[in-house]
Amino acid sequence: MTATAEIIAIGSELTWGMSLDTNSHWLSLRLAEMGIEVAYHTTVADTLPGIVDALDHAATRADLVIVTGGLGPTADDLTREAMATMAGVELVVDDSSLTHIEGMFQRRGRTMPERNRVQALFPQGSSPIPNPHGTAPGIWLERPASPERGATLYIALPGVPREMKPLFDEAIRPRLAERFGTGLYVIHKTLRCYGAGESRIEEQLGDLTRRGRAPEVGITASEATISLRVTAKGRSREEADALALKDIHFIHQQLGDIVFGAEEDELQTTVARLLSQRNKTLATAESCTGGLVGHLLTEVSGISAHYLGGVVSYSNAAKTELLGVPAELIERHGAVSPEVAQAMATGCRARFGSDLSVGITGIAGPGGGTETKPVGLVYVGLAHEGGIDIAEYNWAAERSSVKLRSAKTALNLVRLCLLKP
Amino acid sequence: MTATAEIIAIGSELTWGMSLDTNSHWLSLRLAEMGIEVAYHTTVADTLPGIVDALDHAATRADLVIVTGGLGPTADDLTREAMATMAGVELVVDDSSLTHIEGMFQRRGRTMPERNRVQALFPQGSSPIPNPHGTAPGIWLERPASPERGATLYIALPGVPREMKPLFDEAIRPRLAERFGTGLYVIHKTLRCYGAGESRIEEQLGDLTRRGRAPEVGITASEATISLRVTAKGRSREEADALALKDIHFIHQQLGDIVFGAEEDELQTTVARLLSQRNKTLATAESCTGGLVGHLLTEVSGISAHYLGGVVSYSNAAKTELLGVPAELIERHGAVSPEVAQAMATGCRARFGSDLSVGITGIAGPGGGTETKPVGLVYVGLAHEGGIDIAEYNWAAERSSVKLRSAKTALNLVRLCLLKP
Repeated sequence: MTATAEIIAIGSELTWGMSLDTNSHWLSLRLAEMGIEVAYHTTVADTLPGIVDALDHAATRADLVIVTGGLGPTADDLTREAMATMAGVELVVDDSSLTHIEGMFQRRGRTMPERNRVQALFPQGSSPIPNPHGTAPGIWLERPASPERGATLYIALPGVPREMKPLFDEAIRPRLAERFGTGLYVIHKTLRCYGAGESRIEEQLGDLTRRGRAPEVGITASEATISLRVTAKGRSREEADALALKDIHFIHQQLGDIVFGAEEDELQTTVARLLSQRNKTLATAESCTGGLVGHLLTEVSGISAHYLGGVVSYSNAAKTELLGVPAELIERHGAVSPEVAQAMATGCRARFGSDLSVGITGIAGPGGGTETKPVGLVYVGLAHEGGIDIAEYNWAAERSSVKLRSAKTALNLVRLCLLKP
Repeated sequence: MTATAEIIAIGSELTWGMSLDTNSHWLSLRLAEMGIEVAYHTTVADTLPGIVDALDHAATRADLVIVTGGLGPTADDLTREAMATMAGVELVVDDSSLTHIEGMFQRRGRTMPERNRVQALFPQGSSPIPNPHGTAPGIWLERPASPERGATLYIALPGVPREMKPLFDEAIRPRLAERFGTGLYVIHKTLRCYGAGESRIEEQLGDLTRRGRAPEVGITASEATISLRVTAKGRSREEADALALKDIHFIHQQLGDIVFGAEEDELQTTVARLLSQRNKTLATAESCTGGLVGHLLTEVSGISAHYLGGVVSYSNAAKTELLGVPAELIERHGAVSPEVAQAMATGCRARFGSDLSVGITGIAGPGGGTETKPVGLVYVGLAHEGGIDIAEYNWAAERSSVKLRSAKTALNLVRLCLLKP
């Protein structure tokens, strides 16, 4: 049986346009991967009759309804009540959920506010979906078939993406695969690239990205990181896998070290992996990126064995005091210059005693640009055992983008250096 | 009459998750500005029965239905046909639309493909909305009241945002303002809070967040930052403003320095503003946050006059070498301890010669926790002219959240210190 699904997002902040719903989009992709087709998205404001109507109408057209949002502790969180009303049942307390919520507060050294008690209420006959990522458990509710309509499964999840996504992947996805799985295997593989533009990559891949080709290969770009997504279908997992792997092999051949990873990899996860494999240490000296390289690296757990730390040398005094960049050098060439990037990197490497170090100096804007040194001009120095490399970039972009692209480029230089035999 | 609106986005690429619908969000904001409340968004795949059902069901709950997408020339563009089916009428050719479409192709030096002829078809009784921005005209269809439901106005617009937006602003908005214009002015004001949980804030605001109250006050939380959104309506801008200001005044009274800003403010923008007003300088010593505080601060342009820089002291050696934290102190109390947070903050202040400095040390996880020092334990030290403050936090959260909440808390301590007379 091919299931038809509907996704219902709840929240006046969504229908009023204050926030953009991204959960429905994410869930659609996840369900598509399992062969479950999402035919409807509904977004509904925080009113009880509106939510009940949306839940009820969904049963006329969908076998599976996934609801996000409205599970918080406040008065405008109405999902629990609406589900009970739709199903014609009472709300009852689930003791183990109550214990879990109290525990979450206890671990933060706080007592549970009385309001949060409502998060342990469930429509009679439904099952709680334990949520290790937050206080609100999800709800699993089976609505039996009636003379007018088939059976419908309702699953309510928290609206916060940080809680919703892992909860779906861990607790919901396997159960849905078992129940609605179609027998047609759809495999998605993503390769992540850095160091060439979208159109150049498309050129190098030739026929691969043509529409209608199978497997399908899509390209998306986000702040200079390019993702190639291969979608292969087969009657068995092996068949789909083999088709996908053939394309992946071709992409690696064509793009070489432009491919830095797969699936959810970021440059920092690849750098962390390479640092560990090569048993090398890294330190950072950041001016215009303001600590962003350090922040990205320290998003990777276990990095502490290889990332020794850094200096955010935002002021010239910090460059001199903490990195040993001669004041005279800054005076002569300016703080944004290849000479200062080099001195920052070498000074940082000496200070931290690291194997590798990067020095980044640039003009993030919007102010501070001149004719010869425009906003977006960035120098990155990389000091390593073999010497020092300096690269110049010119990002015509706004402040946040200049920072992010500079940080990524620095990480990419570290990656390429670590790849060398 | 206050109109209730529904927005229907049509396209399988949306329900399947290949594209993210941003039109509904944009239209919601535009309608809200006119006092028209959007209570429902529906997204529906390209199937005739599905679209007809969505259009039909919308009439049970909305006075105004705006449809985007499905007006192109290809076989999966079904909006015209679905509107005719719903209204129980035929599709008829509109000659002036046909002339317009032929003209668009002529001006591009091409003859009109036969397919595009369907774009000149309209449900009988509806009016074309000429579209100077593309080939597909919009559709204006009045569905009269029936015994079961009130009258509903349907407006179909192209799905391409580049065509939809100007067409709405030029051709639709003035007509809607005239028809549904309540003469009612709607004002939105947002206050941003840090330092108390969502339910605690709601408690302190008492009646304010009660549903149905006017003005309406909504609460949303994102990584411990709480937003309070006041929506006030009045017969004049002045009346609406006065109502909103009364609530804002009350919120300030009740929450005091928990309110850190308004509208788009983030803690770092408020800190940057206060540093500038008080003419103070700041430096940072970050362990578990890995440079995130520096990154957030340097997202604010112009911060370089007041943020001197920082040290990412990820390794113990960096704490000792660059911040002067005695190795013996780390040995005795551990790197994650109030003593080390204090020494990091004071060492950082001395090194950078700043007025204020923060020192942050903690266990971001998922590894590295012990029974006495669990994952999420964070100490923040704040060194200032008057001495040093140390605070302890226990975030039961995953790595990224521990980092972000710790960084925000550090910024908040700086803010509170700068607020002192």
